[in-house]
Amino acid sequence: MGGPAAAPNANDGHLRITYDEIHVTIGQTAQRIKEQFDPDIMVAIGGGGFFPARVLRTFLKRVSTADGKRRNIPIQAIGLSLYEEVGEADGANGLAMEEKLGKEVIRTQWLDFSTLGNRPLIGRRILIVDEVDDSRTTLGYAVTELKKDIQAQFDKLSAEKKAELPETKLAIFVVHNKLKEKRAEIPEDVSYFSGADIPDVWVDYPWEQEDILLHNAVASQQRAMGQTLEAAASQ
Amino acid sequence: MGGPAAAPNANDGHLRITYDEIHVTIGQTAQRIKEQFDPDIMVAIGGGGFFPARVLRTFLKRVSTADGKRRNIPIQAIGLSLYEEVGEADGANGLAMEEKLGKEVIRTQWLDFSTLGNRPLIGRRILIVDEVDDSRTTLGYAVTELKKDIQAQFDKLSAEKKAELPETKLAIFVVHNKLKEKRAEIPEDVSYFSGADIPDVWVDYPWEQEDILLHNAVASQQRAMGQTLEAAASQ
Repeated sequence: MGGPAAAPNANDGHLRITYDEIHVTIGQTAQRIKEQFDPDIMVAIGGGGFFPARVLRTFLKRVSTADGKRRNIPIQAIGLSLYEEVGEADGANGLAMEEKLGKEVIRTQWLDFSTLGNRPLIGRRILIVDEVDDSRTTLGYAVTELKKDIQAQFDKLSAEKKAELPETKLAIFVVHNKLKEKRAEIPEDVSYFSGADIPDVWVDYPWEQEDILLHNAVASQQRAMGQTLEAAASQ
Repeated sequence: MGGPAAAPNANDGHLRITYDEIHVTIGQTAQRIKEQFDPDIMVAIGGGGFFPARVLRTFLKRVSTADGKRRNIPIQAIGLSLYEEVGEADGANGLAMEEKLGKEVIRTQWLDFSTLGNRPLIGRRILIVDEVDDSRTTLGYAVTELKKDIQAQFDKLSAEKKAELPETKLAIFVVHNKLKEKRAEIPEDVSYFSGADIPDVWVDYPWEQEDILLHNAVASQQRAMGQTLEAAASQ
């Protein structure tokens, strides 16, 4: 049940991160992503990937060869949850109980191939976006399932078409990668970008906060006390 | 083409809004939404609706009858663009030219009914979320198309089932509603919540900024000079 949450204090072990800090981290990483991968579509894992994907899009605009204007790259959203995170609001959605057992990943939304056109994934540079790489369970699932879809689409092409299209590339961007044991591996042909590699500390993200001004005030206290991601990482 | 953008100044007619201001606006509106509508699913219009939907979810958690814990309500994403906003990155997606003519709305993603279960929309309280209601073109499209889907799903139910399920309700939440001529009407049975009704001024949102610290600095100057949404609204 749990009563009202305890008043936050700067020494409770939760490292507060502000919107501005995350925005800056995304901007810095965007330069690397642009140089080393240059995606032409993003797949945002909701809800955590929504904010990073929207901000990243600002930094990853591509110059159109048609009119020289800088254009947004498209974002597709997918919804993935671990069973333990899914409450009764999802429980009535008609999923079979077997699909929910254990800590399996539940798809609440997938790519919409009806709108993605006739070669939705093949030949593209696809960047998967999420807030944090924790146990890697959902990211691992996303990569595995996208690879299956790509292979299935590729198999349907003619030999001519297969030779003509550029190689399909997958990459991952997460704002934070927690340095801890992972439950899935990222295949070697998938590029990996993290805004920061961080220790396995409890991070409070701004979009999870009811009182954003208090969150910022405590974050500011923490920085003054030397509590930063960098400091945590070097401990 | 355009060279580098001119250095921003507080009197250039762009009203800068910060993450914190938007977060607070969403939190305040969430109380009204909870009391008057209490949604059990959100439909976020990407990319602008991604941030508001993610923040709003924090304020709209529902207490589970199963274990008393506060749970997130699910978010489905849809992608809608006006043709004028769509660049060549989307141009290769196989859409027919006729679909792009004029200022028609282009679906880049729709609800994923394969994961939404066997009564995906019927009997639910569905909140459509976007950043700003400008010409109302995309919001009008979203409402019309969702209503079509709801009617089609309703028509397939047995008379018994129809009587048993609660009424399906639609509502809209936008962070800002621009007070201007609209190109679409919101039907009377659709509730409408805006964080703020604002004049038709140019608003710069934080997630569109490459330099967030400069954005905040200019926003702060503007507030000191009395440039606020409230002041703009009363002019």
